[in-house]
Amino acid sequence: MAAAIRSAVGRCSVTTAIPATVRYASTKSFFPSEPDAPTVKTAIPGPNGKKAISELDQVFDTRSVNFLSDYSKSIGNYIADPDGNMMLDVYAQIASIPVGYNNAHLAKAAASPQMINALINRPALGNFPSSDWGEILKTGILKVAPKGLSNVFTALAGSDANELAYKAAFIYRRQLERGGPDVEFTEEEIASSMNNQAPGSAQLSILSFKTAFHGRLFGSLSTTRSKPIHKLDIPAFDWPQATFPQLKYPLEEHVEENRKAEQASLDEVEHLIQNWHLPPAAVMVEPIQSEGGDNHASPEFFQKLRTLTRKYNVLLIADEVQTGIGATGKFWAHEHWNLQDPPDMVTFSKKAQTAGYYYASQSLRPNKAYRQFNTWMGDPARAMIFRAIIEEIERLDLVNHTARVGDYLFAKLEDLAKKYPEHFKNLRGKGQGTFIAFDSPKRDQFLATAKEFGINIGGSGASAVRLRPMLTLQEHHCDILVDGMEKIVKAL
Amino acid sequence: MAAAIRSAVGRCSVTTAIPATVRYASTKSFFPSEPDAPTVKTAIPGPNGKKAISELDQVFDTRSVNFLSDYSKSIGNYIADPDGNMMLDVYAQIASIPVGYNNAHLAKAAASPQMINALINRPALGNFPSSDWGEILKTGILKVAPKGLSNVFTALAGSDANELAYKAAFIYRRQLERGGPDVEFTEEEIASSMNNQAPGSAQLSILSFKTAFHGRLFGSLSTTRSKPIHKLDIPAFDWPQATFPQLKYPLEEHVEENRKAEQASLDEVEHLIQNWHLPPAAVMVEPIQSEGGDNHASPEFFQKLRTLTRKYNVLLIADEVQTGIGATGKFWAHEHWNLQDPPDMVTFSKKAQTAGYYYASQSLRPNKAYRQFNTWMGDPARAMIFRAIIEEIERLDLVNHTARVGDYLFAKLEDLAKKYPEHFKNLRGKGQGTFIAFDSPKRDQFLATAKEFGINIGGSGASAVRLRPMLTLQEHHCDILVDGMEKIVKAL
Repeated sequence: MAAAIRSAVGRCSVTTAIPATVRYASTKSFFPSEPDAPTVKTAIPGPNGKKAISELDQVFDTRSVNFLSDYSKSIGNYIADPDGNMMLDVYAQIASIPVGYNNAHLAKAAASPQMINALINRPALGNFPSSDWGEILKTGILKVAPKGLSNVFTALAGSDANELAYKAAFIYRRQLERGGPDVEFTEEEIASSMNNQAPGSAQLSILSFKTAFHGRLFGSLSTTRSKPIHKLDIPAFDWPQATFPQLKYPLEEHVEENRKAEQASLDEVEHLIQNWHLPPAAVMVEPIQSEGGDNHASPEFFQKLRTLTRKYNVLLIADEVQTGIGATGKFWAHEHWNLQDPPDMVTFSKKAQTAGYYYASQSLRPNKAYRQFNTWMGDPARAMIFRAIIEEIERLDLVNHTARVGDYLFAKLEDLAKKYPEHFKNLRGKGQGTFIAFDSPKRDQFLATAKEFGINIGGSGASAVRLRPMLTLQEHHCDILVDGMEKIVKAL
Repeated sequence: MAAAIRSAVGRCSVTTAIPATVRYASTKSFFPSEPDAPTVKTAIPGPNGKKAISELDQVFDTRSVNFLSDYSKSIGNYIADPDGNMMLDVYAQIASIPVGYNNAHLAKAAASPQMINALINRPALGNFPSSDWGEILKTGILKVAPKGLSNVFTALAGSDANELAYKAAFIYRRQLERGGPDVEFTEEEIASSMNNQAPGSAQLSILSFKTAFHGRLFGSLSTTRSKPIHKLDIPAFDWPQATFPQLKYPLEEHVEENRKAEQASLDEVEHLIQNWHLPPAAVMVEPIQSEGGDNHASPEFFQKLRTLTRKYNVLLIADEVQTGIGATGKFWAHEHWNLQDPPDMVTFSKKAQTAGYYYASQSLRPNKAYRQFNTWMGDPARAMIFRAIIEEIERLDLVNHTARVGDYLFAKLEDLAKKYPEHFKNLRGKGQGTFIAFDSPKRDQFLATAKEFGINIGGSGASAVRLRPMLTLQEHHCDILVDGMEKIVKAL
């Protein structure tokens, strides 16, 4: 594909060609009609985009809009805008596009009679599921269930998936405290629950970690500790937070101090479990803290966390909303932990294009019906899209592919970081597929400048640039990306 | 259509024909292929349904499942199951199917290239909305915006729509307290918010009513007061609740005592606003308390509630998740209130097949970007379905139609209640379209028996049978329904 570079990584409003000397890996694109390189014709957003944003702003808050996209022209790893610009997209709708824009296999699923039926006859899944709901689950969502977890509760977004898992944890914990699922509620519990008071309203908590992100509804936001702008002015539960290990990179050069940081974190978790005035029913943890700045911890940390939570009969929930579905080179990031004993629940959303949580056994089903229930309980249309995504991941072996491409990309970024150490600090995510990040002292400027070179890329935490490409990212895209990054830092 | 009744309201497993003497209103069905009457061939669920439920239960909690549906065979107001039964559906997926199963206009929208695009290229609407997002909003969701409310924040389900409205209320209130949108957060606010503590975490509340239902996530559940089973064991905020007026029916026979009940409720609201230890940022109210048992209040009550909330600068949010989109004979149920000054926010979901909240002006937009934000912020695919629903409602004039059909149905139910007063108590919803309910001392048995006569109907509160048909319910369906109800009570 390097043979015919139609247009390329240009800055500002001039379309420039990439010099013929730039060598790109000659992998064949998964998408025959994907462009060979980004095209930048205007500032982004350009005149058409700006006009449309201003019209949209009359009715819809657009202050967070980066640019408007033309999804009909986007293809594979490239996102189009209404001004004719075509960017290599390594942000992918905040890590939520799995197998490329306008993926043909997904388009086929979207046009199927079963999909049309699901779109126009949306069921209340708890009361009147369709006859094929079991089959949709078993050939889709459950086909990729984490090892040891056979049940699913479907939801609509990461936040509600997490909150439903919290509810399951509270119900389970109170059931244990009460003496088992057959013990009835007391009159006092029943009456006080209606007044939002103890004992009916549980005096329990969810323990999460500092710099964690678990969503922005009231319960999930109480466990989110990423940024004040997410939390200011919103009432929150008085739930405990433990320090997440602040590892030093490269990991292999800081083994002993990182081990100490992880042990200190585990000690804090244990202390909070034993002493917090609202005892934790569960510990909630991301395999890699994503919104919080791509903070990693070792498999040993998570193994010990599993042991610790078991010791105190506290449930362990893995929030795989951002890390799940292949990006780390495993289908689920927690597979990197090599646990013998799986997390009690695993939540998912984003690249699944639907949401929910997996759990192991019927012991995590509440003792009575309707305790965990809502009108829609998910969306079969979106569950079918996930099924098609899984089929596409299998067809192209995209998890192993992403592990390989991640290694390729990481090595190139290591070289770049050596060349520009002031711009690429704490490069991390080695061996974690394309789930890679680094700190940039001029991060916001880096992200803005990237668009001028036809690269759409996102940040996280205070200073991280995070790569969240699709699973269809290939070696030749990595070449374009790394070349683009060099241009960006030269321009800063 | 009455000419050829193929099969009819039969009990148990025998298909029986309706006697030729039964006269049905001769309205022409909106759906040419809709059956003339229910068909009941087996117990519901039947053998096929039971087998599929048992298979589904291996992976998905089915204890709340009434029966599995065959949506490919369902049509108009009739729901099919996998055993060949065809029920008149006046429950409609918990009040969420607006214009009939397999509506042709919706099917056309679902098969459109724009829909396929939306399904396979799902955007993060806050960052990268599609170029046509403004047009989708303006030709759909916003075309039916309540009077005085020009902006929308899109969401995914009723619960999160309500919680997003609560967040907007808290942010707005704290902004006022702080002295306006330009006053910066203090260092103490910023630091304390990260610890879930005051002053950063607002010490404020949402005031709701007893027997209200506003959803089941942590914030919304703190305002839900319908049933203990919804609330037990789940931590809740210590937010205030006022008594919702417990009116006596028929309303016209209890004018004075109902007026007193409403005034007592308003006095309680005022007392709580003035005295609750966490001051309310908003009052949340359903135009008709739906899950809580179809509890009504008069327009005067809501007018006074509006005046009261204005007096104390507390926002008024109308939860139209169940009442919205035509069922009460107005597009929005709060139109019955005849307010001069609209509610500050109106939330919607269910029949909209998507969710969100409307608000008036940019003064309810937080002072900074990203304070009200999440990855998807709704689903353009579902927003397009809502647009098609609105088109269909307009084409068939379904809101006025529902007002008329509701009057027709209510009159017939009044007759039935006179004949069987012990089974039809507190008939309510007069002049409220088909949003009708009554109390039945043998309610649960009533609902179960209804299926034997080919009617799918739901309950609410402690003893109410609630009618939640689609907007496509017609007079001849009402005849079948009322005949069926007579058979049900005779069988009880």
